[in-house]
Amino acid sequence: MVVYSKHTTAAIKINENEPLLMKDMERFLGRIASSEDYYHHNDFTLRTVNMTEDECPNGHAHCQHLLMSTSETIPIIDGELQLGRWQRVFLVELDRPRSREVIIQVLGG
Amino acid sequence: MVVYSKHTTAAIKINENEPLLMKDMERFLGRIASSEDYYHHNDFTLRTVNMTEDECPNGHAHCQHLLMSTSETIPIIDGELQLGRWQRVFLVELDRPRSREVIIQVLGG
Amino acid sequence: MVVYSKHTTAAIKINENEPLLMKDMERFLGRIASSEDYYHHNDFTLRTVNMTEDECPNGHAHCQHLLMSTSETIPIIDGELQLGRWQRVFLVELDRPRSREVIIQVLGG
Repeated sequence: MVVYSKHTTAAIKINENEPLLMKDMERFLGRIASSEDYYHHNDFTLRTVNMTEDECPNGHAHCQHLLMSTSETIPIIDGELQLGRWQRVFLVELDRPRSREVIIQVLGG
Repeated sequence: MVVYSKHTTAAIKINENEPLLMKDMERFLGRIASSEDYYHHNDFTLRTVNMTEDECPNGHAHCQHLLMSTSETIPIIDGELQLGRWQRVFLVELDRPRSREVIIQVLGG
Repeated sequence: MVVYSKHTTAAIKINENEPLLMKDMERFLGRIASSEDYYHHNDFTLRTVNMTEDECPNGHAHCQHLLMSTSETIPIIDGELQLGRWQRVFLVELDRPRSREVIIQVLGG
């Protein structure tokens, strides 16, 4: 089974669903690529490509996404999804909150 | 072919199997997310969720895993696994040594 | 559909194709694992394994690759590749420029 994000600033990741760990990860991603840093992508005085009317500065989210996954592939055996004991599938929003589109596709069988 | 780890602190990664590079990667991952840093996930005075009897502090391993892969997908063509010259498939243990479960699934054909 | 790189220093990644963002990402990857840092893998006085005649120091490229993807899997529905509005598939060269081999495999149907 493939779980696929149609976005470049929202990742699909398998990890543990423990609330304190969510806080650690948010801080960790902010340290890897901070929204406070300078990104050419956020410089709307220079940039001309892919500009939308509601464009927001999100260079940090693209850089975080570069080290994360657009999709995860999870085996199904005898109709059972093979998630391990602690594994949960997350859509990780790296940009501002908004509606997102995810595709789930099952192959084989 | 999909190689899948059933764990949240043990990744599947393709890279080169060169012993000195293994040392570089271990140091690199420790720099990205050090086991010496503070993680809420490791704070057993606060944490109540997903606690086991042999719980060990492993917040760093979850953060490292967040930037790595739970699985790798490798094409098979005419029955031959299409690994490149230097490509080898690793189970990367990010937490303490222990027994781990990996699923290998072949699709199509 | 699977897009697969046969290399350990060239990743396949989905992200946005915006020229200024390419500059941000190049700088970002250089900050994550700089080519100026020391890597045992680059120490040709010590290293004996996987040495080729034209060996170049590329420890940084292997470390960057460790946090990126060897492949991306993209769903096809009714014959249409399900790339989102801003999603484009990149071969990310992490080492020196050269010819690279990529496999594209379609499963199911």
